[in-house]
Amino acid sequence: MADSIRRVVLAFSGGLDTSVILKWLQQTYQCEVVTFTADLGQGEELGPARHKAELMGVTPEHIFIDDLREEFVADYVFPMMRANALYEGLYLLGTSIARPLIAKRQVEIARQVSADAVSHGATGKGNDQVRFELGYYALAPDIKVIAPWREWDLTSRTALIDFAEKNQIPVPKDKRGESPFSTDANLLHTSSEGKVLEDPWEEVPPYVFSRTDDLVAAPDTPEEITIEFKGGDGVAVNGDALSPAMLLTKLNELGKRHGIGRLDLVENRFVGMKSRGMYETPGGTIYHAAHRAIEQLTLDRGAAHLKDELMPRYAELVYNGFWFSPEREMLQAAVDHSQAKVDGTVRMKLYKGGVHVTGRKSPNSLYSEKVVTFEDDAGAYDQRDAEGFIKLNALRLRLLGRRDRG
Amino acid sequence: MADSIRRVVLAFSGGLDTSVILKWLQQTYQCEVVTFTADLGQGEELGPARHKAELMGVTPEHIFIDDLREEFVADYVFPMMRANALYEGLYLLGTSIARPLIAKRQVEIARQVSADAVSHGATGKGNDQVRFELGYYALAPDIKVIAPWREWDLTSRTALIDFAEKNQIPVPKDKRGESPFSTDANLLHTSSEGKVLEDPWEEVPPYVFSRTDDLVAAPDTPEEITIEFKGGDGVAVNGDALSPAMLLTKLNELGKRHGIGRLDLVENRFVGMKSRGMYETPGGTIYHAAHRAIEQLTLDRGAAHLKDELMPRYAELVYNGFWFSPEREMLQAAVDHSQAKVDGTVRMKLYKGGVHVTGRKSPNSLYSEKVVTFEDDAGAYDQRDAEGFIKLNALRLRLLGRRDRG
Amino acid sequence: MADSIRRVVLAFSGGLDTSVILKWLQQTYQCEVVTFTADLGQGEELGPARHKAELMGVTPEHIFIDDLREEFVADYVFPMMRANALYEGLYLLGTSIARPLIAKRQVEIARQVSADAVSHGATGKGNDQVRFELGYYALAPDIKVIAPWREWDLTSRTALIDFAEKNQIPVPKDKRGESPFSTDANLLHTSSEGKVLEDPWEEVPPYVFSRTDDLVAAPDTPEEITIEFKGGDGVAVNGDALSPAMLLTKLNELGKRHGIGRLDLVENRFVGMKSRGMYETPGGTIYHAAHRAIEQLTLDRGAAHLKDELMPRYAELVYNGFWFSPEREMLQAAVDHSQAKVDGTVRMKLYKGGVHVTGRKSPNSLYSEKVVTFEDDAGAYDQRDAEGFIKLNALRLRLLGRRDRG
Amino acid sequence: MADSIRRVVLAFSGGLDTSVILKWLQQTYQCEVVTFTADLGQGEELGPARHKAELMGVTPEHIFIDDLREEFVADYVFPMMRANALYEGLYLLGTSIARPLIAKRQVEIARQVSADAVSHGATGKGNDQVRFELGYYALAPDIKVIAPWREWDLTSRTALIDFAEKNQIPVPKDKRGESPFSTDANLLHTSSEGKVLEDPWEEVPPYVFSRTDDLVAAPDTPEEITIEFKGGDGVAVNGDALSPAMLLTKLNELGKRHGIGRLDLVENRFVGMKSRGMYETPGGTIYHAAHRAIEQLTLDRGAAHLKDELMPRYAELVYNGFWFSPEREMLQAAVDHSQAKVDGTVRMKLYKGGVHVTGRKSPNSLYSEKVVTFEDDAGAYDQRDAEGFIKLNALRLRLLGRRDRG
Repeated sequence: MADSIRRVVLAFSGGLDTSVILKWLQQTYQCEVVTFTADLGQGEELGPARHKAELMGVTPEHIFIDDLREEFVADYVFPMMRANALYEGLYLLGTSIARPLIAKRQVEIARQVSADAVSHGATGKGNDQVRFELGYYALAPDIKVIAPWREWDLTSRTALIDFAEKNQIPVPKDKRGESPFSTDANLLHTSSEGKVLEDPWEEVPPYVFSRTDDLVAAPDTPEEITIEFKGGDGVAVNGDALSPAMLLTKLNELGKRHGIGRLDLVENRFVGMKSRGMYETPGGTIYHAAHRAIEQLTLDRGAAHLKDELMPRYAELVYNGFWFSPEREMLQAAVDHSQAKVDGTVRMKLYKGGVHVTGRKSPNSLYSEKVVTFEDDAGAYDQRDAEGFIKLNALRLRLLGRRDRG
Repeated sequence: MADSIRRVVLAFSGGLDTSVILKWLQQTYQCEVVTFTADLGQGEELGPARHKAELMGVTPEHIFIDDLREEFVADYVFPMMRANALYEGLYLLGTSIARPLIAKRQVEIARQVSADAVSHGATGKGNDQVRFELGYYALAPDIKVIAPWREWDLTSRTALIDFAEKNQIPVPKDKRGESPFSTDANLLHTSSEGKVLEDPWEEVPPYVFSRTDDLVAAPDTPEEITIEFKGGDGVAVNGDALSPAMLLTKLNELGKRHGIGRLDLVENRFVGMKSRGMYETPGGTIYHAAHRAIEQLTLDRGAAHLKDELMPRYAELVYNGFWFSPEREMLQAAVDHSQAKVDGTVRMKLYKGGVHVTGRKSPNSLYSEKVVTFEDDAGAYDQRDAEGFIKLNALRLRLLGRRDRG
Repeated sequence: MADSIRRVVLAFSGGLDTSVILKWLQQTYQCEVVTFTADLGQGEELGPARHKAELMGVTPEHIFIDDLREEFVADYVFPMMRANALYEGLYLLGTSIARPLIAKRQVEIARQVSADAVSHGATGKGNDQVRFELGYYALAPDIKVIAPWREWDLTSRTALIDFAEKNQIPVPKDKRGESPFSTDANLLHTSSEGKVLEDPWEEVPPYVFSRTDDLVAAPDTPEEITIEFKGGDGVAVNGDALSPAMLLTKLNELGKRHGIGRLDLVENRFVGMKSRGMYETPGGTIYHAAHRAIEQLTLDRGAAHLKDELMPRYAELVYNGFWFSPEREMLQAAVDHSQAKVDGTVRMKLYKGGVHVTGRKSPNSLYSEKVVTFEDDAGAYDQRDAEGFIKLNALRLRLLGRRDRG
Repeated sequence: MADSIRRVVLAFSGGLDTSVILKWLQQTYQCEVVTFTADLGQGEELGPARHKAELMGVTPEHIFIDDLREEFVADYVFPMMRANALYEGLYLLGTSIARPLIAKRQVEIARQVSADAVSHGATGKGNDQVRFELGYYALAPDIKVIAPWREWDLTSRTALIDFAEKNQIPVPKDKRGESPFSTDANLLHTSSEGKVLEDPWEEVPPYVFSRTDDLVAAPDTPEEITIEFKGGDGVAVNGDALSPAMLLTKLNELGKRHGIGRLDLVENRFVGMKSRGMYETPGGTIYHAAHRAIEQLTLDRGAAHLKDELMPRYAELVYNGFWFSPEREMLQAAVDHSQAKVDGTVRMKLYKGGVHVTGRKSPNSLYSEKVVTFEDDAGAYDQRDAEGFIKLNALRLRLLGRRDRG
């Protein structure tokens, strides 16, 4: 197990688990640990992470704390949203999309500090280990990967806490007992799974929700908002120009208030099992609906339908951790090609968990009132063309009908 | 134009437009007109249709009025729902799915009464003409098709009403003026389009809605319901076994009360233009969500993902009118193959326009708490397997990384 | 019919049919005709086309004769070959791919000479009318299109020849009688169809072939050649660097000599009927095989499989005439993204109609003898990884098996 | 490693490797070994396998030798051929398709003799281990799988032969030295890989070929044959009705004589690496071409194109070992749905490695000479329909062109 590792870059949240991992790496591999803590908008202060790392002997120049929020939204969330990606028809991929960025930054740091290994705190049953490690291997094919949860013998909560205490790692009171469920958060979403959520017939208890207000308690009047798009990406909310991360933050506030973006899902993990989770994606849910709405006006049917056909594959690739793969990049190239003219404004009402598009307009609209109108169209469309159109579309069916139903 | 037609079967609603068509056919083709009026759950009485047909000289044995509601739901709506079909990601295809059944029955009647032609009241700009006629031609390749809206010169409302009055066709008061929009209804949905809806930036006015109650006025407490599935199809609501049409009717009531299933959409028509419509699909929206939820538990990932990839094509075929095509049937065969074990119960809350799945259970569940659990799984899953899994999934990416990023 | 047309750009081959069209346009539309004759490598001299146009009163500055061979291969044939496009599994799309270029150039000329219409000599039953006209409409949405074969009454050969003679259009002796079949040729292929080929059970008579030598008479010894690729495109044959058109010309010579690239096909036309044709694509057949072979070494599996899945759609779009469509461009973007490293050399033997790849090498090879070897691989691949890989791939099947076969 | 295994069913060829495995299993697991030897048309006598098993102490009632040739062709090869499956555009999947049948029969025997484990002789680098084991796990989710090549320390040829000699396992003279390449054979094909084939630039040496005669030495005159199909499957060759296995045997003889079906391929293995192999699929290559040809006449375009789009996925599933998966079965259901009318006769010429279709006819032909003819079609097709067809297909492109190129 313990190959000779000299220096390892650990994805370090500062929480109990990754603190234990930090110590365990030091002890098990007798190696130097470099910590990397990313601000992806998870809503936690990062100061304590630095402090803890220092306490455990990480040298200051080996403590990396980066605010990646803008990069996260601009280079990961937005490209994915251009594809209208939904995993298994429903899931906005909030956890999946964060992993490649963390992996990429970890590899960059590993190069910078000449580390020969990377490590993460994902368990052996989940998708995240796959996403992290496919990222590592794609970007640094010869790097060593340490996945403590698959290696160590701290297989129970008690063992973990014992290890922590034996090693002077502070154990927060609320971590002493079993947490009733496990979460992951970033600017796009918070996911919750495990324990009280494991029976897919049991309703998710109210205390699980952290990113969205209760629907019944949400405002009794709809709130109207607008989102503006440029080249397929959101650029303004209610007329205020915003950077990608600020735009998503704004939509998160709006979505939270109206209880938007809750999803109770039983999904298929890449590792072969089904799991049940509760996702809260307030801003992302609004954004997704708005992006589809502006595409309705600005994408040609051929582009729109091709995108819809490619989307499930794209979403599967992101979910499975193949962000840094040629096939995801090829699909992205196709998707991005379609977005140049996706400009315009979408108006929607937020109300009691719902996102209701009420209007959309665009300088690049392909919608032609002149053509579609029920009124006289002054020759914009010749209804007699439809006869030939139908006749030739029917020709093969008629030949078939003559053979099979004659 | 006027080929020698002896007898034509007209899809006859009894409304002003098809009454005018009836008369116009009699005059223009000097032929006998057979009327066919279907009850697809559109919520109108069919008695008047018979009366009007009689008044216009149709002989009683040539007036066909059929209640097709059960066939509609069992053989058209449910198979489509098995595919989770959504056109352009959002539209539940309520109009599209009714046309093939009408066409099929029209062709049957044509055979029965030895008619040599069929006719419908769809305009030359829309999709419905295509759906009707592809159905006719597929099932009766040599039948003649008369599409009055593409042929006649009654191109304005005034001309139509003039024709009606000149021919003693009663014109209801509310049809004298221009209707502010046009609708189509059946058990699955009501669609509204045209006129006041033609500007996609203008919000749909409240008077357009007929199938769903206003969201703000909807009940202030969520209503919990259950739907039971057997072999991929709904069989009971809240524990009450119901026939397909009765089940959809029940869900329509529930959905209406909670303002569920409104969709403001700009869509791409098969004939090449964009149009904007408001769809109300109360029961279908609930059913669709429930079907996905029960599939989450009972479909293997391979089946589920293949279905998701095939779905956009399936939906496009239904939308474009290719119900009676080999490729739709092939996709249906694939979809249906997956549904044998799709049994179980879904619980959901209806509230203010939202459908929220809160639980699902099945005798055929593939979800294994034993495997997925965060707790000790007693060897149901060996976490070390994940390493090999990741390593071999990464191998090609590593070889690629060595070449391209080395 | 005869809208007021002032000036029309005609795709003019100089042959009998387009000469008749030229005259017919002048007479019917009382308009000025601009001729456009392209050298796409069809192997005919273009001088006579100029002469004929002049004879029929076309002013010299309105006679356009362009050598488009390099553009044809570089911007149309090669991009299509990057996609490994085969229509219906077999057809290399030789006719289809030429039409968009002709349409594009016609539209450019129309702009240059301020013409308000374009015209072509394709019949009303075939695919070419669609390909021309979709190209025209995509590039010049408001241009008028004249398709004489769909308009005029010269529906028999006799009528056509009568018209020619009445109008002093020289009728070559061999055009007096019915030609036993019809052909289209360019640098990529020659197609033959119609008449003697119309019975798909009848063997194609030897006199039909013009681009490939008889297989039995072909050389009795295989000829070994190499093709070199750079960025997915061919750049050299047998070590000689060649421009795109020169490279295809060279492969055509080699293929002709060895009887390569004959295809007897019954295909499905876009207009709804089946037709039978004989295609001869000597150089293209060699090139296609070579491109696949170099991709085998240089494309990652993910890229290769995605390309294979997208290919049928791509080929269908080209066949149906949607070259200038967003969806073809999106697919091209995906394909092109994969080609950056498709460099290297393929060696093959040509013999009696067959193309046999015998070796391929590349500076960007992803093939790793070290990994794949049956010999000791010095740890390049850990066979134990396979167990975990299989176990997790099997997990869902085992859960399914327990449910369904237990 | 050595879980307590009581009885294991080994896929036993009788060759050196599986003989060593037999002994190794007995020694390592102290368990009873049941041997299963299948005749899949590999062209070896099975008598010796029985004798060897007996010599190594397998009790007669635990020696299973089955002739599975008819089942192999009827239930595995033919269904796959209905899909026109080609892996990576070229490979007819001869090895892949045999593995599920072997796995299925092994599992049946395991049930019959109450064995708790199964074992195979595939190595840890290849696809076959995956194919065997996915089959085992799908059909018998709780069975134990022993893959000796991934477990033991006989990692060199010398170690293997030492073990054999130490255990009185006869080592044939030609197995003493290293074999220059490795093969797999069954009624569909022979594959060769490894050693002398490992450099993809080196031409395959002539002594590798065992199933096809040299092209240059092949007959100098083409041989004309016919294949008759019924319901998508071959039923007769040259007018002689033949069972599935006999038909493939007959085509193998014909193909061998004319050097048909050689394929030099660099392919992507499921385990993540590229490998180079030489496949010889004489009869399968003829059959594949014939099946496509009869489909050309009898499949509607919609069915044919859908099949082409689904094919790469189908082939990938078979290659990767997912024969017994819901998604392969769903695709099969779609494919099979299309085959009911695929009846008729294909005529082809075999010559110097080439298969040349020269004609096809069918009682269910959809080809209509009347419609397609260049001659007067007596109104079967109205050329004016094409205008409307084109106009409406162009409408979206025109709207787009006005926006983007205006």
